[in-house]
Amino acid sequence: MTDFISRREFSIEWAYCDPTGIVFNGRLFEFFDWGTWTLFEAALGVRPSELAGVFGIAGIPLVDASARFLNPARFGDVVEMSSKVKEFRRASFDVEHCLFVGGRLAVEGRETRVWTTRDASASSVVRSEPIPDAVIARFRSQ
Amino acid sequence: MTDFISRREFSIEWAYCDPTGIVFNGRLFEFFDWGTWTLFEAALGVRPSELAGVFGIAGIPLVDASARFLNPARFGDVVEMSSKVKEFRRASFDVEHCLFVGGRLAVEGRETRVWTTRDASASSVVRSEPIPDAVIARFRSQ
Amino acid sequence: MTDFISRREFSIEWAYCDPTGIVFNGRLFEFFDWGTWTLFEAALGVRPSELAGVFGIAGIPLVDASARFLNPARFGDVVEMSSKVKEFRRASFDVEHCLFVGGRLAVEGRETRVWTTRDASASSVVRSEPIPDAVIARFRSQ
Amino acid sequence: MTDFISRREFSIEWAYCDPTGIVFNGRLFEFFDWGTWTLFEAALGVRPSELAGVFGIAGIPLVDASARFLNPARFGDVVEMSSKVKEFRRASFDVEHCLFVGGRLAVEGRETRVWTTRDASASSVVRSEPIPDAVIARFRSQ
Repeated sequence: MTDFISRREFSIEWAYCDPTGIVFNGRLFEFFDWGTWTLFEAALGVRPSELAGVFGIAGIPLVDASARFLNPARFGDVVEMSSKVKEFRRASFDVEHCLFVGGRLAVEGRETRVWTTRDASASSVVRSEPIPDAVIARFRSQ
Repeated sequence: MTDFISRREFSIEWAYCDPTGIVFNGRLFEFFDWGTWTLFEAALGVRPSELAGVFGIAGIPLVDASARFLNPARFGDVVEMSSKVKEFRRASFDVEHCLFVGGRLAVEGRETRVWTTRDASASSVVRSEPIPDAVIARFRSQ
Repeated sequence: MTDFISRREFSIEWAYCDPTGIVFNGRLFEFFDWGTWTLFEAALGVRPSELAGVFGIAGIPLVDASARFLNPARFGDVVEMSSKVKEFRRASFDVEHCLFVGGRLAVEGRETRVWTTRDASASSVVRSEPIPDAVIARFRSQ
Repeated sequence: MTDFISRREFSIEWAYCDPTGIVFNGRLFEFFDWGTWTLFEAALGVRPSELAGVFGIAGIPLVDASARFLNPARFGDVVEMSSKVKEFRRASFDVEHCLFVGGRLAVEGRETRVWTTRDASASSVVRSEPIPDAVIARFRSQ
């Protein structure tokens, strides 16, 4: 597990809620995505829209995502989300997101993403690539 | 007004509905987008994902969109949507979408879109371009 | 036109963008919805989730929405949105939203909403109701 | 594992895709939700919007969701989704969704949901309730 944690606070908007008045689950995976971009920007000092360009990669696409819904988040609730890299492997990594409402854990999320580059011969194809040590170091040293 | 009308039927899903149990308005603009792609595929015989390539364009981005919400569409309702080009101008056109629930007009939508190509010197810039007569003719002759 | 303006700043997230890298139009109508709730909370001092309860209403549903897309908002862009009530009528009102990116107007939105109560005999039916003078006054006096 | 499988076919719409042209992951959880409603309607012969009323329940909320992304689904792709209950327990159950594009498995999803009723004393609180044998039997006998 790395040491670096980023935090983000936001409100549950009307547009996020389903007919029972709680956040629709698909939206939570949007929040996790927000969390990962925020975490990488905080750790690497690179704006999300420049991440691919700066590191010469195609992106960090998801290969696995999951969530546990422990307590409902409702319209108007203020969410405190903390995000961190749980594990770096050679070419992939796990990000963990914890969403708190009123100090109580509401949702736990997990994403597995891959560090990818475009194939030289077919630009629509991406392949995994070792994560640079310098990137991993930034998540450890802060 | 052109003669060509395309139709599409779909159900109001749980994920589309807000806490009052009716479709959130932003989703309706997704439906309009579905309608325009469906209309162009039907009129031109070109798959949506191939439209830009076949016509050498950057796309048909929106410059204006509007909707009137006359009757609510609720979870489980079956929607009949009809879409047609209301007017072709030199480089832009208006698409009109009518959504019926149980035979009653629920929503009326209007999109104004522009026929665009990429600028030769800066690929991130798009500019309007005259709509080919052959494209317009396809909406008239069917 | 009323005097009261509320402002909100946010970033364009990855999840909001379409394959051309700009915000999908349906998302903009979510932003307008955020803007209206924010505006009402600022003017009335009532949390969005308590608005219906405090005023004994069913809600403030949309009957009309429109947007003009003047300049694209892209992944990572910071948006400054200002929202105000353009006009109060007896039972309905217009909200105007202006979204700026880098100081330049990117999107203009307009919503028409209705002040509604539940029908006494059929709770699933809502009907328009005169907007209380005290509500309108709050948008004028600040 | 139960025997009953429901299937649903749909296209990947423009609005579902991110800047790399593939479906944004949050949308896939919407598709899983579609799949579960479709499955329950097919197995029980009850329309989704009437499920709660017919069985006297509050709903079947998610407590856990996950997905594996094996191959990208792109704008215009036709998806064949099959959904089935993987396991019924006393008050909860797992639904498995497999999404195929061009005959190749693209995404595997899993939802854990709970059969809930409203608390008699506090209607905003839901509690788990044993799934009726008659409901489970419908997923076995078909």
